[in-house]
Amino acid sequence: MTEVLVKDLFGDQQIAEDAEITLHGWVRTIRSSKKIGFIELNDGSTIKNAQIVMKAADVENYADVAKFPISSTIAVTGTVVYTPDAKQPLEVHAAKIVLEGASDSDYPLQKKAHTYEYLRTIAHLRPRTNTFYAVFRIRSLAAFAVHQYLQEHGFNYLNTPIITGSDAEGAGQMFRATTLDLNHLPLTEDGQVDNTKDFFRKETNLTVSGQLEAEAFALALRKVYTFGPTFRAENSHTQRHASEFWMIEPEMAFEDLDDDIVTIEALIKAVVSYVLDHAQDELAFLNDNVDEHLIERLEKTRDEKFARLTYTEAIEELKNADVDFDVPVYWGLDLEAEHERYLCEHIYNKPVFLTDYPKEIKAFYMRANDDGKTVAAVDLLVPEIGELVGGSQREERLDVLKQKIADNQMPEDEYDWYEDLRKYGETVHSGFGIGFERLVMYVTGMENIRDVIPYPRTPGNADF
Amino acid sequence: MTEVLVKDLFGDQQIAEDAEITLHGWVRTIRSSKKIGFIELNDGSTIKNAQIVMKAADVENYADVAKFPISSTIAVTGTVVYTPDAKQPLEVHAAKIVLEGASDSDYPLQKKAHTYEYLRTIAHLRPRTNTFYAVFRIRSLAAFAVHQYLQEHGFNYLNTPIITGSDAEGAGQMFRATTLDLNHLPLTEDGQVDNTKDFFRKETNLTVSGQLEAEAFALALRKVYTFGPTFRAENSHTQRHASEFWMIEPEMAFEDLDDDIVTIEALIKAVVSYVLDHAQDELAFLNDNVDEHLIERLEKTRDEKFARLTYTEAIEELKNADVDFDVPVYWGLDLEAEHERYLCEHIYNKPVFLTDYPKEIKAFYMRANDDGKTVAAVDLLVPEIGELVGGSQREERLDVLKQKIADNQMPEDEYDWYEDLRKYGETVHSGFGIGFERLVMYVTGMENIRDVIPYPRTPGNADF
Repeated sequence: MTEVLVKDLFGDQQIAEDAEITLHGWVRTIRSSKKIGFIELNDGSTIKNAQIVMKAADVENYADVAKFPISSTIAVTGTVVYTPDAKQPLEVHAAKIVLEGASDSDYPLQKKAHTYEYLRTIAHLRPRTNTFYAVFRIRSLAAFAVHQYLQEHGFNYLNTPIITGSDAEGAGQMFRATTLDLNHLPLTEDGQVDNTKDFFRKETNLTVSGQLEAEAFALALRKVYTFGPTFRAENSHTQRHASEFWMIEPEMAFEDLDDDIVTIEALIKAVVSYVLDHAQDELAFLNDNVDEHLIERLEKTRDEKFARLTYTEAIEELKNADVDFDVPVYWGLDLEAEHERYLCEHIYNKPVFLTDYPKEIKAFYMRANDDGKTVAAVDLLVPEIGELVGGSQREERLDVLKQKIADNQMPEDEYDWYEDLRKYGETVHSGFGIGFERLVMYVTGMENIRDVIPYPRTPGNADF
Repeated sequence: MTEVLVKDLFGDQQIAEDAEITLHGWVRTIRSSKKIGFIELNDGSTIKNAQIVMKAADVENYADVAKFPISSTIAVTGTVVYTPDAKQPLEVHAAKIVLEGASDSDYPLQKKAHTYEYLRTIAHLRPRTNTFYAVFRIRSLAAFAVHQYLQEHGFNYLNTPIITGSDAEGAGQMFRATTLDLNHLPLTEDGQVDNTKDFFRKETNLTVSGQLEAEAFALALRKVYTFGPTFRAENSHTQRHASEFWMIEPEMAFEDLDDDIVTIEALIKAVVSYVLDHAQDELAFLNDNVDEHLIERLEKTRDEKFARLTYTEAIEELKNADVDFDVPVYWGLDLEAEHERYLCEHIYNKPVFLTDYPKEIKAFYMRANDDGKTVAAVDLLVPEIGELVGGSQREERLDVLKQKIADNQMPEDEYDWYEDLRKYGETVHSGFGIGFERLVMYVTGMENIRDVIPYPRTPGNADF
């Protein structure tokens, strides 16, 4: 008798026919007649279930087993029988079934379809469904593919701080992190909150980006990347925004915007390719049940070169498009999702790089182009999602950077250390940020960011 | 002329002698006489410097180059000359040197030794030193080794929430995350802060552990792990505690305490082995300059089986030890670092597993042993650090768990979902947590947690 996983049954190294095995898992479905019954058993090792065949004549407690509630934990000992002509390639003929943990009969995931909205209220149970099993398995594979590609290409993983004393790029509203007792706040003489009494002796917030801190390390370790949580305290209720999400932020010394674009495309292709190779069962399920164009789109992403054009060219293309956008198109417009998606879904039908955006709609640290109007920025737009990646060459010229900080009325003393990076050996360098959840949406076909995060945080929702 | 990295010069595929190459990097040292000069050039691709030889006769701007400040960014074009009899295996004979970014002459890292305390004040520049280059490169490799080992062994990476509505295990003081304006707090009728007006419509905090949330996913995906930041708002000023640190928390369904211990040992050995294989230059530097027993200790960790004994046995050993501890030893004591280190440094001289701790000093979710006094807990103690890993078999019996929650006067309705995991198919399961920074301290020989975190957060300190 050998303990095996359901995954092993379907693996390349098949279990010998008639081998006696034991499986531990959860009952997904059970149906039985007087003499014979069938259990679909899932043990978490694969999205697939093992088909357990039990005969009343073989299984001592057959009558009891037939009544086990869905989701009960059982141990099945039996023999493997290959069934090349049946729907499933093999069955396990049970000799013994032990109840290890009976489920309550009010288990909320009985065999019927539930809405995604309902499943979000049972985020602790939804990974037991095929859809969410597939999503979270692919999320894990995609994360590993990011690490693997970057590590193999000379990048060093860097953990930039979550709690920060600065507001980085002014990218959005922040959460304050504090240990002050809100019902007994210490006050200064003029009646304001005395932040010097807080844990860090000043006001601190949750990071919106680790980029600036990562730049410092790129100028020492050459190539680095962050991969960690970031936060936005915006009262945003779209399908593409969460209050807490993970970002991947690579930074590279001695690389310009063209190099940046090469790395972005290679990384996205590497992740897509890894998922296509390692999640065939999960993708097949999602393609059948969630998005019928998913695999086709991923294969195209892996195989075809991405399009590339400037922001200015894109504005022309959008102006010439025979479509009424909700927001009219003009040079200088911060593109909306409708424009981004039109470009990559209708004009190019694949991922599209847009470069050289107007400086007014991009962050202070992006390198000024010689035209005086644009910056060396790049966004990657992808079908179904819109913006997936945003990057730029960084402004390495101290005088230009100082002017930008002054123009934006940013507190200069907070950026002393950032300016040091230009004072002590200024270096051409570039980087980008990927919203990891958007990448997971892209490789799973899921349409709502709440459905690719284990326990999503959005305004008014911090359950579990 | 080929663009190469310094790493390539020292790599297995050597550059051909006399090949014309270009390097971009930062001047680490420069010394020159009238006719000949030497530059140690670092380009971030390796801890090693390229030795640049420049002759006044060959390099047009020789007189200028000789005066370039330390840390200036330069491009060097020249030819590779192998020097098998010299200290360094090769030199680059410069034909052309271009200044890409002049450093200010007040660069704080001139060639002299600095204290770690001082270097913490320039956390944005310290990765440019050999010590911190080595530490942060090894940190990156260790993180990847964790992911690689776990992914190859059936684990799924899981991002549990950072902002949480519950206090998980009561493991310590928490930071509050809020968007309330502290100078204009909304109040309830009875004059208290109205938390329903906060962003998530209730009080939320930064997580101290993702374990409970990970358990839910282990009961669906079988094996999962978190690897993310966790927080403690304790006013702690030791060398081993930070306010923000990263934890690795694996959870495994159908595994008991013995299985847990097998996985812990295999994972630690895998990380140590990976670092030994992939960071030879960095370890050699740290062994020479930081901790002369580092490599020896790591090889021993990789090669020898860890010791294992029960807490009760350990108490006996400590009582019998011929040493005066600051805190006297008795059964029931929550061991201090002095006891932990005595066990693994003096008695066993290697990593030691302690199991089956008194239930009073361990968390509510650990599985009660049949003796009524202890729980199925395990800590891994390692030389120089003390506790590196803490784990347990989890209490899967609903009635026992409910009693524990009641005994600890925990708010039962907050744990409804956690109890559901026992209601709907209770399953033997186990897990553990590794403090990642302690692991990095162990594999680098660094003694202060502030020196293995890029931008450390401790009470009163949230710079950068």
